[in-house]
Amino acid sequence: MSDTEFDIIRRYFTRQDSRRRDVIAGIGDDAALLQVPAGMELVVCMDTLVEGVHFPIGTPAAAIGHKALAVNLSDLAAMGAEPAWATLSLTIPESDPDWLADFSQAFFKLADRYQVQLVGGDTTRGPLAVTVQAHGFVPESLALRRQGAQAGDHIYVTGTLGDAGLALQLAGDAGNELQHQLDYPEPRIAAGQALRGIASAAIDVSDGLFGDLRKLLSASGVGGEIDIDVVPLSAQLREAFAAEDQQRFALSGGDDYELCFTSAEELQNEVAGVRITAIGKVTEGNDLLCRDANGIVDFEDSGYLHFQ
Amino acid sequence: MSDTEFDIIRRYFTRQDSRRRDVIAGIGDDAALLQVPAGMELVVCMDTLVEGVHFPIGTPAAAIGHKALAVNLSDLAAMGAEPAWATLSLTIPESDPDWLADFSQAFFKLADRYQVQLVGGDTTRGPLAVTVQAHGFVPESLALRRQGAQAGDHIYVTGTLGDAGLALQLAGDAGNELQHQLDYPEPRIAAGQALRGIASAAIDVSDGLFGDLRKLLSASGVGGEIDIDVVPLSAQLREAFAAEDQQRFALSGGDDYELCFTSAEELQNEVAGVRITAIGKVTEGNDLLCRDANGIVDFEDSGYLHFQ
Repeated sequence: MSDTEFDIIRRYFTRQDSRRRDVIAGIGDDAALLQVPAGMELVVCMDTLVEGVHFPIGTPAAAIGHKALAVNLSDLAAMGAEPAWATLSLTIPESDPDWLADFSQAFFKLADRYQVQLVGGDTTRGPLAVTVQAHGFVPESLALRRQGAQAGDHIYVTGTLGDAGLALQLAGDAGNELQHQLDYPEPRIAAGQALRGIASAAIDVSDGLFGDLRKLLSASGVGGEIDIDVVPLSAQLREAFAAEDQQRFALSGGDDYELCFTSAEELQNEVAGVRITAIGKVTEGNDLLCRDANGIVDFEDSGYLHFQ
Repeated sequence: MSDTEFDIIRRYFTRQDSRRRDVIAGIGDDAALLQVPAGMELVVCMDTLVEGVHFPIGTPAAAIGHKALAVNLSDLAAMGAEPAWATLSLTIPESDPDWLADFSQAFFKLADRYQVQLVGGDTTRGPLAVTVQAHGFVPESLALRRQGAQAGDHIYVTGTLGDAGLALQLAGDAGNELQHQLDYPEPRIAAGQALRGIASAAIDVSDGLFGDLRKLLSASGVGGEIDIDVVPLSAQLREAFAAEDQQRFALSGGDDYELCFTSAEELQNEVAGVRITAIGKVTEGNDLLCRDANGIVDFEDSGYLHFQ
């Protein structure tokens, strides 16, 4: 005997222990009733993960539950927002209690880490797909935007790049330590908030540094130059590949969920406990050039374009 | 040559002509930046429609575009909210320009009617599914909730019930005038807002009157009695079926998107231009009884349970 939709929702997704005071009504009515604090702007993003497109068939339910929320929190981080609420639309082919328990536990574990309350959503039968909408707050006029970078600003990234791309390449290999990085990305929430008033523009690196930085520069109406020799790489990535392939993973690997941002200030090596690296400068014009010790590198963007 | 995801978004979903003043940043950044007016609570709901589950294969793109937004606006209506913003996650097997044009035109036609701005979302490749989240406002403490009904209150419904269920039954028949009702439900936005301060509780009738009213009564901790002879039916439904089948469609047909609400007041026949009908009373206890001229009817609930 399988569960009814209502039982599923009740059993796995309705919890009373994460009640925020700004949630007047969460799950259980026609809609959630919420209160945005005075002086705050509401920040809203939505991302969908589809089996076979955004994660391989056979990905553990816990990884899907974590990642569906994490990719959205990463967007909030890129805006400098403080996370608050999430809604979840879960489409599953069948009601499998083990799968649902793993999925919901991982979802709530990450949600709890950032005081995010699940306030609504939908559970339907169909091909496996997860849509999450995340909501956060940012003090008026302090949001980090893609626009705002100015010629002369430094370009920074958090963490290291390319590891998730490498993990995808190594998927299934024994001892693939990077698989965890791919399955359980950590949104840069604290760094994003710490960059309010410091970053002139920001974006999260989800589709590859080269393509995402180009979006930031384009939104700001400027160009840029990056030194690909200083793009931060993990030791694993350095060991696994020749220099050229390292760069390809780091510049267009996707799924990194680091932040790329610009700032007029020369910053220290860390923001909110997260390593940052200066990788180049914002320029006039509208080109994004890559340099190494030998000069301009003709880097062909192969960022992740879902419909190509 | 197929479109890239970014071209799809730009071509079909980015419009500049519906800019609301409370949208600081819509589509085009990592997240939308929004401003909830002072004194207002935020009302948020999310619904997913999956091909083959919520609409038959072959349903026109325009009907899907309309309905995906309409079912969410219906939830806002049930809260007495004024619609404001929507986000859209569209998963499609391929990028078909005609389909996208029809879908987006119908979506925006309905959005424009209620001054709703699309502020973000996601477009992915996969089995056809649409998730919409709608956002609205309601003045502090004036939201209509499922809880609040008290013994002695009258029970009302808007419009007529069962037509969508009948349309599903007749699907494909020539001259099926009710198909439009099924494909293009009209959310009861004006009625919902007019019921602030008048209705003691409200719910939208999406899964069938009997089951949805029971949810309202259960949330309120009360019971109810309805007179099934006075449940409002369309002329088409009366003509198509014998009395017993009429009642089955009207009480458990689903997809009606009318409002069911309770009120201590005896109301006139209309709210905000929409016909309303008194169908029974709220009672002590926790049962929902159905009566006709001959007494209690043993109505077996067959409301729509997605996972049964």
